Amino acid sequence: MTDRIHNFSAGPGVLPEPVLREAQEALWNFGGSGMGIVECSHRSALFDEVIHSARERIKRLMGLSDDYEVLFLHGGARTQFFMLPMNLLRGGRASYVDTGTWSYGAMEQARRYGAVDVLFSSRQTGYDRIPGPGELPKAPDGTVYLHYTSNNTVAGTGFHHIPQTSAPLVCDMSSDILSRPIDGSKFQFIYAGAQKNMGPSGTTVVILRRDWLDRCDPDLPEMLRYGIHVAKGSMYNTPCTFAIYMIERVTAWLEANGGLVAMEAKNRAQADAIYAAIDRSERFRGKADIASRSTMNITFTTGDEALDTAFWQGAAECGMVGLKGHRSVGGLRASVYNAQTDGAVTALSDYMKEFEANHG
Amino acid sequence: MTDRIHNFSAGPGVLPEPVLREAQEALWNFGGSGMGIVECSHRSALFDEVIHSARERIKRLMGLSDDYEVLFLHGGARTQFFMLPMNLLRGGRASYVDTGTWSYGAMEQARRYGAVDVLFSSRQTGYDRIPGPGELPKAPDGTVYLHYTSNNTVAGTGFHHIPQTSAPLVCDMSSDILSRPIDGSKFQFIYAGAQKNMGPSGTTVVILRRDWLDRCDPDLPEMLRYGIHVAKGSMYNTPCTFAIYMIERVTAWLEANGGLVAMEAKNRAQADAIYAAIDRSERFRGKADIASRSTMNITFTTGDEALDTAFWQGAAECGMVGLKGHRSVGGLRASVYNAQTDGAVTALSDYMKEFEANHG
Repeated sequence: MTDRIHNFSAGPGVLPEPVLREAQEALWNFGGSGMGIVECSHRSALFDEVIHSARERIKRLMGLSDDYEVLFLHGGARTQFFMLPMNLLRGGRASYVDTGTWSYGAMEQARRYGAVDVLFSSRQTGYDRIPGPGELPKAPDGTVYLHYTSNNTVAGTGFHHIPQTSAPLVCDMSSDILSRPIDGSKFQFIYAGAQKNMGPSGTTVVILRRDWLDRCDPDLPEMLRYGIHVAKGSMYNTPCTFAIYMIERVTAWLEANGGLVAMEAKNRAQADAIYAAIDRSERFRGKADIASRSTMNITFTTGDEALDTAFWQGAAECGMVGLKGHRSVGGLRASVYNAQTDGAVTALSDYMKEFEANHG
Repeated sequence: MTDRIHNFSAGPGVLPEPVLREAQEALWNFGGSGMGIVECSHRSALFDEVIHSARERIKRLMGLSDDYEVLFLHGGARTQFFMLPMNLLRGGRASYVDTGTWSYGAMEQARRYGAVDVLFSSRQTGYDRIPGPGELPKAPDGTVYLHYTSNNTVAGTGFHHIPQTSAPLVCDMSSDILSRPIDGSKFQFIYAGAQKNMGPSGTTVVILRRDWLDRCDPDLPEMLRYGIHVAKGSMYNTPCTFAIYMIERVTAWLEANGGLVAMEAKNRAQADAIYAAIDRSERFRGKADIASRSTMNITFTTGDEALDTAFWQGAAECGMVGLKGHRSVGGLRASVYNAQTDGAVTALSDYMKEFEANHG
């Protein structure tokens, strides 16, 4: 028996148990150093090895060549919403694909720094879908970048393809990074908060192709300049050492367990099991367009607000938490990030059946 | 016997062992919730209690009335170097007291947003001293704020008084916050990275008197607006939940152990013991002006670079780490933050005696 419950939180969310066990040790005495991981200087050889390894593991897992820099920055993905266009837009034009709360937020911040072309928006239909392959119009000539959000945590939709475009591609991968193999070379710039698939909150992974560094506005406050963070190896100031340590351990766990191919198969099987439970039921329905369904965040509803509340409250009593939908849209949501267990998914499917029997 | 060494790191640095033990538990199963503290949603009731308690404990310890907001922001103290003047200077003038690497860095970022009056600088003498009580000239009329750094980690100097001024007082307390009782009401704005006296790296505590919120530039990117972070209770985006949890536990430990009065007595006794060891020796000399000596970071040297290296290398072999001076100035440095143990200080004093005997 375990003393752990089933955690379906959309993030911060469940982390791999073997990593948590290691982290417990490391908090007290990291690698036999006699210090906890959060007590050692970020300038120490000890930590240097951690951040170097985290960087290399991410590059290996995402197939990134040495043309790319991997940074660990402060400020959450939200800081990238403005930092990216502030550095690179500089009065030019960028294309945005508006598929959810976060893509919209990113787009609105970009308007401060140049013209925004909205190539697609499902805002009017509650962000129920993402554009299919080939559906995006061509970005105008001279577009600095095309920005999209690969997975939408609130609406529960996700891209199952990489959009085709001649513009440099920028992707907010906060909620599906490292959840499946990806061709990193297709991207110019990737960013992702750590707190879904990679670790705890507190750091944002920023991956950028080095050829963009020369194009960044050189006259910004130091903390907002990518070039400084690259030159200083993400240690221009004290980084969030614990989050970086955890990312290093989670990526090690990924590499030791079949990498992203195995992870994709696991994630897909878990998502499919929950979607199947929804689709075979007459009580529940999925919220997202079927072709746009996310493999990370499964949104659904009974169609009745009071019943939705009864569902997640009852689930919590049975040891399943985090099933309440995002406060902006209500309903229900189950997140199956990399560390989600099959036991949790089975428990949820069983509970759905039981709930339907009781509230047919 | 313990498996922990003596850690004199200038930060991230040593944390209280009872807090580390609690954190180990909390990583796996926080408060019987069945989830680790870094796995639960920042929107959960569980975490809400943590952040609320951290805020209240800081207010109690620092004697802050309800006129003050306590925020937990991203980006390290360095982000405040530009975020503060960007919000508040707006073409006006600010006074800076230049007593070290960090105060200088803050000052240089402020120049982007208005005029800077340097009321005092010890830069020419290697930042060996801070201005004595009454030594600072009056800030010019219309000064938006006077900024100083209460403790200088690199040079090893610190203020033992609060500067008198009619200008609103801003203080970077990164390396001595919560190390002694303070009259919080004297300050308009305080900021401090967590990674010295309060917890791990990853969050910056920002304390501001609410009457300044109306004066902030309303036309900044959202993540750079204090008003948004206040309105959202530091959760406009996902905060660094682990660092906030640790601050809550460290402040609870402070409150349970005599508060800041007891802490000041402990810190002073430890610093005095090391300064005494320096002053009675003919091998070592302190680097800072005696009246300006820091109680947190004790800088000293043998006067010989090779011998300094032999000292910290030898110390590491005896289980004492973090004694190498800051890379920009060399020499030696011992940090005695709140969690520093008397055992570490005794071990260091003994080692100094032994070193002197061997290298007289």
